[in-house]
Amino acid sequence: MYFQYPLELIGTFFFAISGALAMQDKEHDWFGAAFTGFVTAIGGGTIRDIMLGSYPLVWIGDIHFLYAVLAGVVMAIVFFRLFIKLRRTFLLFDTLGIAFFTILGVEKAIALEVKPEIAAIMGMFTAVMGGVIRDTLTNELPVIFRKEIYATACLAGAILYLLLDLHTPMERNLNLIISISFIIIIRLLAVKFKLALPGFRKR
Amino acid sequence: MYFQYPLELIGTFFFAISGALAMQDKEHDWFGAAFTGFVTAIGGGTIRDIMLGSYPLVWIGDIHFLYAVLAGVVMAIVFFRLFIKLRRTFLLFDTLGIAFFTILGVEKAIALEVKPEIAAIMGMFTAVMGGVIRDTLTNELPVIFRKEIYATACLAGAILYLLLDLHTPMERNLNLIISISFIIIIRLLAVKFKLALPGFRKR
Amino acid sequence: MYFQYPLELIGTFFFAISGALAMQDKEHDWFGAAFTGFVTAIGGGTIRDIMLGSYPLVWIGDIHFLYAVLAGVVMAIVFFRLFIKLRRTFLLFDTLGIAFFTILGVEKAIALEVKPEIAAIMGMFTAVMGGVIRDTLTNELPVIFRKEIYATACLAGAILYLLLDLHTPMERNLNLIISISFIIIIRLLAVKFKLALPGFRKR
Repeated sequence: MYFQYPLELIGTFFFAISGALAMQDKEHDWFGAAFTGFVTAIGGGTIRDIMLGSYPLVWIGDIHFLYAVLAGVVMAIVFFRLFIKLRRTFLLFDTLGIAFFTILGVEKAIALEVKPEIAAIMGMFTAVMGGVIRDTLTNELPVIFRKEIYATACLAGAILYLLLDLHTPMERNLNLIISISFIIIIRLLAVKFKLALPGFRKR
Repeated sequence: MYFQYPLELIGTFFFAISGALAMQDKEHDWFGAAFTGFVTAIGGGTIRDIMLGSYPLVWIGDIHFLYAVLAGVVMAIVFFRLFIKLRRTFLLFDTLGIAFFTILGVEKAIALEVKPEIAAIMGMFTAVMGGVIRDTLTNELPVIFRKEIYATACLAGAILYLLLDLHTPMERNLNLIISISFIIIIRLLAVKFKLALPGFRKR
Repeated sequence: MYFQYPLELIGTFFFAISGALAMQDKEHDWFGAAFTGFVTAIGGGTIRDIMLGSYPLVWIGDIHFLYAVLAGVVMAIVFFRLFIKLRRTFLLFDTLGIAFFTILGVEKAIALEVKPEIAAIMGMFTAVMGGVIRDTLTNELPVIFRKEIYATACLAGAILYLLLDLHTPMERNLNLIISISFIIIIRLLAVKFKLALPGFRKR
């Protein structure tokens, strides 16, 4: 499991950048950017751990996560103009964040001995709930309800990980790399080709 | 208490339908409908259990609740056109959901030995918080702030149950039926006659 | 610690008033006012305690907090016209609320033996999260993202308290008075002179 800890810190860092950059179209100040960076980065894991009753929360028990968030926020502020010029930066950081967090969330849930169905949901929650809280606070329609495949990619990656873990002898680190890559590829293809699930609305 | 378990599953099923149908005026996909069905169905009980520190959460400890949600979502998607043609369907499922969940929430809180005032609030939260989360996520004004009597009906029903439970020798199952019916009747009368509490606003 | 209990009740009372008054521009009824008063008053402490895993929640373990909320809501409804005529009333109650709650939140977090950085965040959360929930439910942009210094004042006060507590021999009650006054002064000056942090947005 020596792989998990740096990945979780890196995912937190990516997510904090994506959360702070989300402020770009708003008239907010630095504190607002730090706050949205913080809730985006720690929101999903916090909801997962509270739902599973797993204490202390990751970022409360280990102060390094707070520093990873701060580093991400500072980087977002310092390289702000650069990041928004590179229009795909936000997408990239966000995609890396959800891919890492989904699989790490699944693994944490399994370690707490919940059923695989619940673990898949917890993986998806870990990945998307930070963004959902961010969007709710900034009065945006949450990212999970927007057009392209997003949370569905996380759910698919979580299920893939669980299938490979439970039904094949595949080694864990390989499974980790495959499942994380799977989420990244689905998400980037969905954005590139504007893939969406079938609609569901009143005519 | 053999009554409680099927009622809770049925309430979850009703609420998942009402949550998935809430997507009808939005441009969302099936995943969005499943997600809102899920949070509507499990949100209230989740908030109640987290506030009471009661673990594992109902739907994490017992996988049948997840299947009840899935069944409700699938039913909402399959019978979608039928349900929205019958304009009162949503109201009916939602009313059944809040009535069942209020009283079951009160009973769970009492079983965890909180004071009756807290149990009444927990009953109301169990019933309305799923809808509050659903409406917040979809950028609607939460149902509890809209015109007709809604959460107040739940609170009244919770108080009725507690009064009958603590101050009369009434048998539990009878109390359950009376209190649940009381909420359903108040809510349906409120909608039919557009009953609302006194307003409270600036002139 | 005989100081803390009445202060917490008074802060709850102030916050319930400010939450109920927040309804003034909405077309809501008395229940809506009571509900927003309630979530504003207990939201921050509830989030803090759930994040720290500290059970029972303050207002569930001690019924007096519920009565403090009720008293605040009733006072807001009875003196409604008076309060909104005095345009600064809302500001005053809210400022008293955030100042008290920040420091009491820091103290509670320290008592639960978290790191000072976490305690500072918990103090700020205790103060602002009730308002954040209130604003999110009523579809307002959360108060923490609006122009003048708000959450930053809480964070600064929390850090001042921690510095004085950890690095000076200052007596606790004096520290309490200094830090609470510090938050009140920063906040009132910020509103009077429209002080804000540097902006952060796309040109």
